[in-house]
Amino acid sequence: MIRVTVWNEFFHEKTEPAAREVYPNGIHACIKEFLSVEEDITVRTATQDEEECGLTREVLDNTDVLIWWGHVKQYDLPLEIAERVKQAVLAGMGIIFLHSSHLSRPFCMLMGTACNLKWREDGDKERLWIVDPSHPIVQGVGDYVLIPNEETYCEPFGIPEPDKLIMIGAYEGGEVFRSGCCWRRGYGKVFYFQPGHETYPVYRIPEIQTIIKNAVRWCEPTVRANIDVFSSPNIKKLTD
Amino acid sequence: MIRVTVWNEFFHEKTEPAAREVYPNGIHACIKEFLSVEEDITVRTATQDEEECGLTREVLDNTDVLIWWGHVKQYDLPLEIAERVKQAVLAGMGIIFLHSSHLSRPFCMLMGTACNLKWREDGDKERLWIVDPSHPIVQGVGDYVLIPNEETYCEPFGIPEPDKLIMIGAYEGGEVFRSGCCWRRGYGKVFYFQPGHETYPVYRIPEIQTIIKNAVRWCEPTVRANIDVFSSPNIKKLTD
Amino acid sequence: MIRVTVWNEFFHEKTEPAAREVYPNGIHACIKEFLSVEEDITVRTATQDEEECGLTREVLDNTDVLIWWGHVKQYDLPLEIAERVKQAVLAGMGIIFLHSSHLSRPFCMLMGTACNLKWREDGDKERLWIVDPSHPIVQGVGDYVLIPNEETYCEPFGIPEPDKLIMIGAYEGGEVFRSGCCWRRGYGKVFYFQPGHETYPVYRIPEIQTIIKNAVRWCEPTVRANIDVFSSPNIKKLTD
Amino acid sequence: MIRVTVWNEFFHEKTEPAAREVYPNGIHACIKEFLSVEEDITVRTATQDEEECGLTREVLDNTDVLIWWGHVKQYDLPLEIAERVKQAVLAGMGIIFLHSSHLSRPFCMLMGTACNLKWREDGDKERLWIVDPSHPIVQGVGDYVLIPNEETYCEPFGIPEPDKLIMIGAYEGGEVFRSGCCWRRGYGKVFYFQPGHETYPVYRIPEIQTIIKNAVRWCEPTVRANIDVFSSPNIKKLTD
Repeated sequence: MIRVTVWNEFFHEKTEPAAREVYPNGIHACIKEFLSVEEDITVRTATQDEEECGLTREVLDNTDVLIWWGHVKQYDLPLEIAERVKQAVLAGMGIIFLHSSHLSRPFCMLMGTACNLKWREDGDKERLWIVDPSHPIVQGVGDYVLIPNEETYCEPFGIPEPDKLIMIGAYEGGEVFRSGCCWRRGYGKVFYFQPGHETYPVYRIPEIQTIIKNAVRWCEPTVRANIDVFSSPNIKKLTD
Repeated sequence: MIRVTVWNEFFHEKTEPAAREVYPNGIHACIKEFLSVEEDITVRTATQDEEECGLTREVLDNTDVLIWWGHVKQYDLPLEIAERVKQAVLAGMGIIFLHSSHLSRPFCMLMGTACNLKWREDGDKERLWIVDPSHPIVQGVGDYVLIPNEETYCEPFGIPEPDKLIMIGAYEGGEVFRSGCCWRRGYGKVFYFQPGHETYPVYRIPEIQTIIKNAVRWCEPTVRANIDVFSSPNIKKLTD
Repeated sequence: MIRVTVWNEFFHEKTEPAAREVYPNGIHACIKEFLSVEEDITVRTATQDEEECGLTREVLDNTDVLIWWGHVKQYDLPLEIAERVKQAVLAGMGIIFLHSSHLSRPFCMLMGTACNLKWREDGDKERLWIVDPSHPIVQGVGDYVLIPNEETYCEPFGIPEPDKLIMIGAYEGGEVFRSGCCWRRGYGKVFYFQPGHETYPVYRIPEIQTIIKNAVRWCEPTVRANIDVFSSPNIKKLTD
Repeated sequence: MIRVTVWNEFFHEKTEPAAREVYPNGIHACIKEFLSVEEDITVRTATQDEEECGLTREVLDNTDVLIWWGHVKQYDLPLEIAERVKQAVLAGMGIIFLHSSHLSRPFCMLMGTACNLKWREDGDKERLWIVDPSHPIVQGVGDYVLIPNEETYCEPFGIPEPDKLIMIGAYEGGEVFRSGCCWRRGYGKVFYFQPGHETYPVYRIPEIQTIIKNAVRWCEPTVRANIDVFSSPNIKKLTD
């Protein structure tokens, strides 16, 4: 059983009518709902306004894969909590960063770069092209996923070279973006997935749900590291 | 002085009016012309109908960077000559594969994969987006290069993960393609660059010329290997 | 059920007493034996002296993971059979190249490089260090695997940069070698694993067996490609 | 002219006789000395006990390549200065991290991982093997560099997969370590180089000096980014 925690800053959906209309109970509730159908996945949610932003050590210790959606409140996330999330990833927890979370503290800390991009908000149609059709994350989708309306993201995307690029988004207005990127950091797997502006029902598209489900399974830890993953021990001379 | 050889199968320009009109003396002559202006570059050309396809060992030994354009005659290139080109790259010669050369024998042999793609020929407008603006190959061009008309190439492109992806092409009709890709193979650098259909004057666009000039300088060998790059020598026990 | 074919050139074990003593029925028989214990794996063997070198299209179509051991007879493998193996990998079949198979035709064709190295045969002790302890292939082994006697391989190893380096071998005499390397080629996974000289009982070491079992599971195809993985189809303009 | 700043925490050389004996004026003075001979390099030094740790914005703005040596005082480096160094790298400044600087704040921030390792201090002989003899950083050195005495570092080294691994260290006692690793972060190049314990005269070895000189030239920025490398600008719809 893969234990997933869906984390959301949960701000737009409480303050902006356009977002509330699409996700009345929050983006996290929508993601939880479609993940809960899966027999091998168990889901809980956490939001930024909870105590310790819903990310106590106990929560992280019991999370195999963390899904993250953040935007305007990203800089309000205390550094120590961001650091705690990063450490959990290095110890093996998988993590999926969605959409505007490219500027979340944990993502930037794990990447070591600015993670910036260019954007415009015109509700463009996006085609999410599959670059590597053999990758587990894109099984069950066709040559591309059609998103009727999406915020436009544009290169250059300030990330380290992905270990594996699996999707490129192409927008109606002509822009492109590396929309599906994989990295390893310590014992943990990191997946960045671009779709999901708060005012369009992107997470209700079946293929998007399929990709997120696949990503959860791909992100599942092979092994959780013990504390030693962070220490630099003094060793003895080999004798064998 | 960087010694460049521009190789062209030189078939379309002799047989198809549309290609002859754009490149009356062949694509190789056009590329030679704009490279010859550069003070640090010396250029010669070679074509498939020459003896040994213009690629004698003497030519390769005196080539620092080989530029390759091939298409319908790719399977007529003798395997031993393709192998000779591959060996020259492994020994340090830089190589730039243009457009339809994705299916050339030397490219497929260096990649180890099918190198296939999807395509259509509708003269789409292409925007060639810069993914890594700090890379030497894209210095002197803006956020993207606009190509008024180009053959459309589409993912998935059957290549190994590039060591560095530096450009993504976006076509008017909605397709995307990894249009600028870098690899190391042995001592040599490999650059694949998608633009350049034979019936559109793509190689007359100043930014395209800038990119090819930059690529020549990027591909210049750091060092040429001696024969040992191919042998597996029996060594003696270390004594120091 | 993962369908494994263990392929062996099966020459040393029939002609050299030292090899016959260690592997009286051939290296392939030894590998088959320890894999057969696993409930999720079914194993058959093939050798170079069989018809079509034991690698008919039917065999490859029914193989999920091919394990390869070759050495002095590598250049006797017909090119068309090497090509057939390469195509099967590109279509999704996993492949594990052992020891001297670094110079096998299928490995060199998949890598696109010389795949050469330096070597000496003094029965050195080797320590096989784990560089990425979170990788599925090294689960169940400690910080390193001790191999009492092994042929020494030494860098530089003429391969493309691995997608993931997971083991480095260190020899008693002071040499080092990238002993466990992963790549993707097309739909298929490739694993190179250095241990296994024919005159030392390396494949009888429990941790070596564990690594090969893990590698089989890691190499299992996510999806097998249909014929389209090799074609470059002409597509129509998108209409959605 | 490449403007290099050699930064040193400069603690051991003032407090430990063994270090003072080897580097009476500090490690930074030794490195400055051998770099100053080069006609294309101009060098200054900075140390942790200077104001703002010697790393004012003005210093960083006028540094093309920063060389870093830190150890026991790494956690005394103010976070804002570490962040300033990181930002300078993302904007194009090259950086070389030496030896124990694997745990420096700027390195860990750029990598996004724990950057930990195992170690012992027995003055082992180290052989620094060249994995990629065609890389600019290792030109002018042989198959390996012999270091008579060095602190032993051992895998696993908690780093993201290097963009390019160019050296592997092998120690007398049997350990191995990825001793020369390259990454891109933003517009800047990062090189980690393991040799250089404070009590052994490693930086007086000619080949080690050659490698550091080469690394300075490899790290030189192709282009310095303006402020936009950190912003995520709202763009207008394309009209061309």
